[in-house]
Order: sequence, then C-alpha cells, then structure tokens
Amino acid sequence: MKGIVLDLDSKNKISYQEVPSKSLEGDQIRIQIKAAALNHRDEWCRQGKYPNLTNGVILGSDGAGAITEVGADVKGFQIGQEVIINPAMNWGDNQEAQSKDFLIMGTPHDGTLCEEVLVSADRVHAKPNHLNFEEAAALPLAGLTAYRALIYQAKTKPSDKVLISGFGGGVAQFAAQFALGLGAEVYVTTSSPAKLEKAVSMGAKGGFDYRDSQWVDKSNAEVGGFDVIIDGASGDGLNDLIKVTKPGGRIVIYGATQGNPATLEARRIFWNQIKIMGSTMGSDQDFEEMLTFVQKYQIKPIVDSVSPFSEAVEAFDKMRDGKQMGKIVLVP
Amino acid sequence: MKGIVLDLDSKNKISYQEVPSKSLEGDQIRIQIKAAALNHRDEWCRQGKYPNLTNGVILGSDGAGAITEVGADVKGFQIGQEVIINPAMNWGDNQEAQSKDFLIMGTPHDGTLCEEVLVSADRVHAKPNHLNFEEAAALPLAGLTAYRALIYQAKTKPSDKVLISGFGGGVAQFAAQFALGLGAEVYVTTSSPAKLEKAVSMGAKGGFDYRDSQWVDKSNAEVGGFDVIIDGASGDGLNDLIKVTKPGGRIVIYGATQGNPATLEARRIFWNQIKIMGSTMGSDQDFEEMLTFVQKYQIKPIVDSVSPFSEAVEAFDKMRDGKQMGKIVLVP
Repeated sequence: MKGIVLDLDSKNKISYQEVPSKSLEGDQIRIQIKAAALNHRDEWCRQGKYPNLTNGVILGSDGAGAITEVGADVKGFQIGQEVIINPAMNWGDNQEAQSKDFLIMGTPHDGTLCEEVLVSADRVHAKPNHLNFEEAAALPLAGLTAYRALIYQAKTKPSDKVLISGFGGGVAQFAAQFALGLGAEVYVTTSSPAKLEKAVSMGAKGGFDYRDSQWVDKSNAEVGGFDVIIDGASGDGLNDLIKVTKPGGRIVIYGATQGNPATLEARRIFWNQIKIMGSTMGSDQDFEEMLTFVQKYQIKPIVDSVSPFSEAVEAFDKMRDGKQMGKIVLVP
Repeated sequence: MKGIVLDLDSKNKISYQEVPSKSLEGDQIRIQIKAAALNHRDEWCRQGKYPNLTNGVILGSDGAGAITEVGADVKGFQIGQEVIINPAMNWGDNQEAQSKDFLIMGTPHDGTLCEEVLVSADRVHAKPNHLNFEEAAALPLAGLTAYRALIYQAKTKPSDKVLISGFGGGVAQFAAQFALGLGAEVYVTTSSPAKLEKAVSMGAKGGFDYRDSQWVDKSNAEVGGFDVIIDGASGDGLNDLIKVTKPGGRIVIYGATQGNPATLEARRIFWNQIKIMGSTMGSDQDFEEMLTFVQKYQIKPIVDSVSPFSEAVEAFDKMRDGKQMGKIVLVP
C-alpha cells in the first residue's frame, strides 16, 4: 500500500511512496481510507517545525473510510462500516485539559494520509449519514477544535453575538458554521473580500478587514460588542479583540499564528470582566458531542478541493500559501 | 456632623470637617457609622487619580453601623439594627458584568467616612453576628471583590491548589481567608517575610517571594502548579503566573497595580488551556452570597488598626506606604 510520508531530506519534504502493511492488534481496527484532509499541522511537520519528526512517518490527522478488519477484542463494529477517525489520542480523564501523554495522529504516530490505517477502536466513530467521505474527512481535527472553543469553553448561546477572526482557516470556518447552526449572530474578520462574501453567503451578518486601522471603531459602532470571539491568531490583534468584546464577554484563543502580543490591556480585562480562554483540540467527550451537534444541525464541512494522494505536494503548497477556501481533501 | 472629605487644594488633600446633614428619601436608610475602613480607592481619590473628583465629597466605601432612621417606603428594617453597607451601586441585572451606571460609594457619591450616611435600603444588610463593627466595616469592598474573583469567577473547589499573589492587600487577604475556609491548599506570594509568616499562621501552606528570579521554578517543583491564581497586580508578573498555572487552571485578575504586561505567553495559554478572567467588585448576588459564606465559615477580617476619624491623614499615609497588615479601620 502507499502513503504520504515525511521525507525531510527530499526537495518537497514529503513523498508518496510504498509503506509496509502492519498486523492488527486486538483492540485495533483496520480502515481503508476513502478520503483524508490536510491541516496546518501537516504543513508544519513538512516545514520541520515540530520536535521529534522522523522521516518515514505517515502524515495526516483527518480521515474517513470503511472498516476492512476488526481486532479480536473489539466489539460493536463490522466489516464495511463507514467511519471517521478521532485523531486526538490519550487526552486523559480531565475535561479541562489534555494529559501529558496527549498525541495527535500524523506525528509521531502514523496518520491518515495512507491507503489504510490501523487505529484503536476507541478512536473510531460512525460516519455521520449526511456527509460523504470527503466531507467527513474534513471534519475531525478542525471541527473538534472549533467545537471545544465555541461550545465547551465559550458556552456560546443562540442569543450571543459571535466574532470569528481569520475566517480563512479550517477551525474558523467550522466555528462560524457551528455558531450559525446555533442561531447566533455571526461576524468574521478577514482580509479577503472573497472570504467575507463566502461568510455572508453562509449566513454571517457581516465582517471586518482587520488590516483597516478603523475596524475596531467600525465594529463597535455597528455591532456594539461581541459576547464571544474565537481567535487562532493571538499577536497584537488580541488587544483589538479585547476592545470589541462586551463586558463579561469571552475570547477563546486556540492558536498563536501571529505570535505573542506586545502588551495586554489588563485594566480593560478586569474592569470589563473579560475572559481570555485557551483551548486546544478536544477531549473524547468533545468529539462525541461534536458529532452529535454536526448531525443535529446538519452541518456540512466546506471542501475546497479533492485531489489524489499523488498530488500531495501541490495540495500542501496550496495550504502553505493560504489559497484554499475550505478544507483540502486528498483521496487514495 | 463631621466627615472626611476630599480637599485637593489642601496640603493633606483630605479634611475632617463639618458636613451638612441631609433629609431622608423614601427608599433610604440613615445609618450612624460605628466603623469605616479604608481602601486603596480612597487613597487614589486623594491622589487625584479618578475622573470627576469634587472637593467636599465624603470618601469611604466601607462602613458598618446602626440604623437611626428608616424612609417611608422601606420595609424590613428597624431603628437600632446593626448593619453593613454594600458600596456597589447600580450593578444591573447581568451577573457577568456591571452596567454602565455602576458606581462605588465614596466618589462621586458621598461615602462612609462620616458620622452618618444615607443609603438606599437595598444597599443595607444585617451585620454578621460573629463580627464586631470594626471587623464588619473591613469586609464590604475587599471581601466582595475577593469573593467574586475566587468563588464566582474561578469557581474554586476544596480540592484546588490556590495561589494568592501580593498577600499584602485587602482583597488578597480575603481571598486567602475564603480559600482556606473552603479547605483549599493555599499559597501566597509576597516580598515580606512578616506577611508570609502571617499567611502561614492563618493556615497557608507556604509562599514565594516574587522578587526571587527562581520563584517560578521553586513553585513548580514544590507545588506542581496551581488550579487557581488570584492576582491584583497584572504587569510582567502575569507571565510568571501563567508558568505556575496547571493545565486547565484559571488566573483571575482584579487589578493592574503593576500595569500592563510587556508580552503575553499566548502559546502557553492555548496549549495549556489556561483561562485569564477579569473580575471587579461584585453584583448584589455576589454580596449576599459573600455574607452567607463569611457566616458559614466564621471568617473574621484582619484588622490592622483602629483609629479615630481625626487621625485620617496618618491612616491614609499608612495605606499609601503599604505599612498595614490587614484593613485600616477608622471610627467616629
């Protein structure tokens, strides 16, 4: 069988190549991958930005497929069943934070960008019926992160005004879809008119260009403050987000693509009783609740494109360059 | 009658002088003050650090006394009843944050440093039986702030490890007492060996000198991270606090005496799923719950000293210089 592996000594840093098939352990399930999706995590592996990267590891955290073999100790699954994979491993039993053993599929453990994967049965869930394999593959990592940030951490309600910053990213898009599903009033920030148009077409009420030096004032005049903000950028923009947060509101940060902010408006935080809440991925409970939520609100992931595994380099490059609108899906 | 009023044109900026008696409105109660207590807010008024300061305003947010007159529309109070005053006015009906009309007694409205005060009946509560007037007067502003930070915001549990930063201040002392009352494991930071000794004598398990460049490492080695941190300083120390917070832990900031931090460890916040929660004063609900809590756990405020209103200047100077250990109480 073939998979997309890390190959840091090569020109493209990844390689689509033959990989060995492994034998199944008792608690595992063998899944024939029908579709897998890319995350920035995969590109960061390609760029060597994680510790303990090993050439030959199969990349990919997101995948959906059909069961081809079930371990001797596994109950409740059948050959042929259509499933999606929870890529978050070893969260532990504390719903507030992951354990020190927490891992994400795709490095250092083999991931989903392969014709076939072996995973523990407790990572395997029935594919939501309303999603095809490509849509299902787009869901796990970004959907889980968005769900935990928006629902578990921020406890977003239908009556909330919600701002999703950096609407380009996968987590941001799911957060917007989930908030819209709830019935919240959703706005986005983006520097791209096309992405703003996409957000509005999905049901968002409006958006702001975070490069506009007046956007904070415009937002406060138009919206009057947000109850919930979901942000993956951090950086100096965090203080702008604090300025558009309602008293008592909460900002959930799930990333820091813009690095650390050069200051923090502490006085505004305590006087306005604002919460800044860190969030990452999600627990097994979050994943199960996310699947229930997606089915209840019939949410369909936005798929940018579907291409064959053999075109992985082009797909990774597209993500690196931020040219996608939705998840980039690869199929064997 | 006499009161301590703002007198910014004088040498001491405050003056103990004759003030006019006012007539009672229908929803008000007249209270003969038996004891009042100082807060940094009073000193900041003296230093001209608030907007809209007016010479002649009676300072003071904390007070306890006996009812001498009850307005025509007031029910449930009697002449002679011993009471304490909730100095937080117009919080509004949102438990998450105060309204725009929120005010604190002592500026711009007349405060408690007076032989007699008139307040709306809804600010008046029975004095806890286990407290004398001096102890009761020490409670309201700092106790309310500590209660909301520790209980409403951080939702501190008996099993939590709690760090109270800057153990010198009134809010910090109440937060420590409340956390100890709950049965939590309490540590403090302070630069004063005497204050550390005091904390330990109250039941704290230990403490750290935040000026020691190794305190973060020492704390992590000794304690293994805090579930809850209550901080009134902000400033660069906030990033140290983030480093001693357990994954999933929460830092409540109720002030920024050290200003804004020069950066924020955003990556650590999101990866460790830490919450930074702003908090200020408390709602009417918080005040009532705080009184119930103080009675349930028989908490007695730490009183540094009791002096007459006529020695107000010396008392304000002591607070300015940070020489107190506990609340500074003044009596008519």
